[in-house]
Amino acid sequence: MSKFWSPLVNDLVPYVPGEQPKMANLVKLNTNENPFGPSPKVIEAIQAELNDNLRLYPDPEGESLRQTIAAYHGIRPGQVFLGNGSDEVLAHIFYGLFQHGDPILFPDVTYSFYPVYCGLYDIPSKTVPLTGTFEINPEDYKQPNGGVIFPNPNAPTGRYLGLQRVEEILCANPDRVVVVDEAYIDFGGQTAINLVDQYPNLLVSQTLSKARSLAGLRVGFAVGHPDLIEALNRVKNSFNSYPLDRLALAGAQAAYEDEAWFRTCCDGVISERERVTAALEGLGFEVLPSKANFVFARHKEQAGKVLAKGLREQGIIVRHFNKPRISEFLRITIGTVEQNEALIAGLETL
Amino acid sequence: MSKFWSPLVNDLVPYVPGEQPKMANLVKLNTNENPFGPSPKVIEAIQAELNDNLRLYPDPEGESLRQTIAAYHGIRPGQVFLGNGSDEVLAHIFYGLFQHGDPILFPDVTYSFYPVYCGLYDIPSKTVPLTGTFEINPEDYKQPNGGVIFPNPNAPTGRYLGLQRVEEILCANPDRVVVVDEAYIDFGGQTAINLVDQYPNLLVSQTLSKARSLAGLRVGFAVGHPDLIEALNRVKNSFNSYPLDRLALAGAQAAYEDEAWFRTCCDGVISERERVTAALEGLGFEVLPSKANFVFARHKEQAGKVLAKGLREQGIIVRHFNKPRISEFLRITIGTVEQNEALIAGLETL
Repeated sequence: MSKFWSPLVNDLVPYVPGEQPKMANLVKLNTNENPFGPSPKVIEAIQAELNDNLRLYPDPEGESLRQTIAAYHGIRPGQVFLGNGSDEVLAHIFYGLFQHGDPILFPDVTYSFYPVYCGLYDIPSKTVPLTGTFEINPEDYKQPNGGVIFPNPNAPTGRYLGLQRVEEILCANPDRVVVVDEAYIDFGGQTAINLVDQYPNLLVSQTLSKARSLAGLRVGFAVGHPDLIEALNRVKNSFNSYPLDRLALAGAQAAYEDEAWFRTCCDGVISERERVTAALEGLGFEVLPSKANFVFARHKEQAGKVLAKGLREQGIIVRHFNKPRISEFLRITIGTVEQNEALIAGLETL
Repeated sequence: MSKFWSPLVNDLVPYVPGEQPKMANLVKLNTNENPFGPSPKVIEAIQAELNDNLRLYPDPEGESLRQTIAAYHGIRPGQVFLGNGSDEVLAHIFYGLFQHGDPILFPDVTYSFYPVYCGLYDIPSKTVPLTGTFEINPEDYKQPNGGVIFPNPNAPTGRYLGLQRVEEILCANPDRVVVVDEAYIDFGGQTAINLVDQYPNLLVSQTLSKARSLAGLRVGFAVGHPDLIEALNRVKNSFNSYPLDRLALAGAQAAYEDEAWFRTCCDGVISERERVTAALEGLGFEVLPSKANFVFARHKEQAGKVLAKGLREQGIIVRHFNKPRISEFLRITIGTVEQNEALIAGLETL
């Protein structure tokens, strides 16, 4: 620690993102990217913005993109908040929409950025154990808290919680914001966005990094009651007025204007997920039921760490978490048919 | 205020960025954008990244861009921190590199985001009056503080502080971080980056939004001792792992690879600044000596507010701050020759 650091910095435990190796020819199944590229209309839309206007600031409100997302989901633009990837959106949520004196509740096995945000803003948290089958039990969220957050489907488990059960959590916490982090919702789940008019305490976050194939463009958003959105705007405008650049705004908008491409990509991932699941089961894996673009699987005999290492030696990268309850699991992104074949072939040799 | 807001939100006083009007054909001289577009090499470099790889996350460390900036300034990549525009970089600086128990010092007339960051992170601040001629006096920064920050050239005054005087401030504050915000340094000032090896308490921030004509791409950075950079990385990695998208990383790098374009643009702005200054003086304005891509001027007889309104009625937008000491001034961005002619012609009618 340097004498120049603010005391806060020393206590930070930063998030560690999935590795982004710079070697070519890897079978990269470790960061849940989409195996399909973005819609050609995204490329065209960015192309059209690629000119002298880059000298000008982008629209700080991202009005056109908010209108597009709102129309897509049948809500109003004032219910949409944009950010530089859903991670930035989540950071602003932790700052602005949780009560910092009470513990924030999230599952014990979940997205590992949540405790990092708590550390950043000095907010207490309490992890709520998933059931023995790695499910969220709404009953467990009926306890005093400063806010609730969980991914749906959950990560890294891939397990999905039906909307009726999400509503149970919302009803049990009428005075607290409940955040449903839907990074992976488009691979088989039902979005809670349709519930925002009914629950003023519901905030749904989504990203264009997964189902929209735009991890490289950094766009995420949250949807909720305008009062919640106003809080996020106040935080954002106290931090960085222009988090989305002109190209990202244009590309993101076009991604919502090509529904056919989107559906085809999601369907492709889903059918490959089912095929990979069956193949893994054939190899002696237990695979948790997934509604995401990855599967979470443990072998009945072989250790997760050993398998991850063995795959890496063959140039196949999956994610292994050295953490309680899940250290025997591998989180495997669903790739292209060829990548998935390589994965299965690789595992067969181990 | 909503019951769902964290108590912090209610106290926030967000920054108000310069207006980004959506009407066409305006003479827009209100947000200090560059009148020249970015280098054609920037466009080409982004073009080359505009493909299926957008489905993949960007390099979270921006290694290639950091290497380019380091080589350009004759420093090491570990002395460079990247962010989504220099505003995001500044936010992380306020969080991570100022001592929050003591007041942060900055000029009374300066970039109005500084007090907003103090509000965001609940840090006390103390404004230090500029001299009667709107200059920073290093003597005034010899008082207890939790950190020092000032733009050089200062905004909105445009006044530049010579490096010897910057060093006086650095020497007077060996136990505190002194941040020199060089958003406008390339229009006639000398960067303090050459001093970072000498002063472990110096952090210099720059942006690609002004001299590099890339306000629309959102890239900024800070340069300093690796200990300072480490603090910023810890904060960034506790907030958002990937603040720069693939296209921004590529475009920013190319901007540093076309020195001739950069020099030509800066020279063009500087010569127009001198011409506009003379013309304004001819119209009865007092113009502060500027080393930025804008001038700060007040008319000897006419009120700043009235002039701003009169120009707006002619479709010419300049920035007017309704604030103590400067309410009679206009901050006028240096535009193209045609825009500057329109400005002068517009003022002649008022």
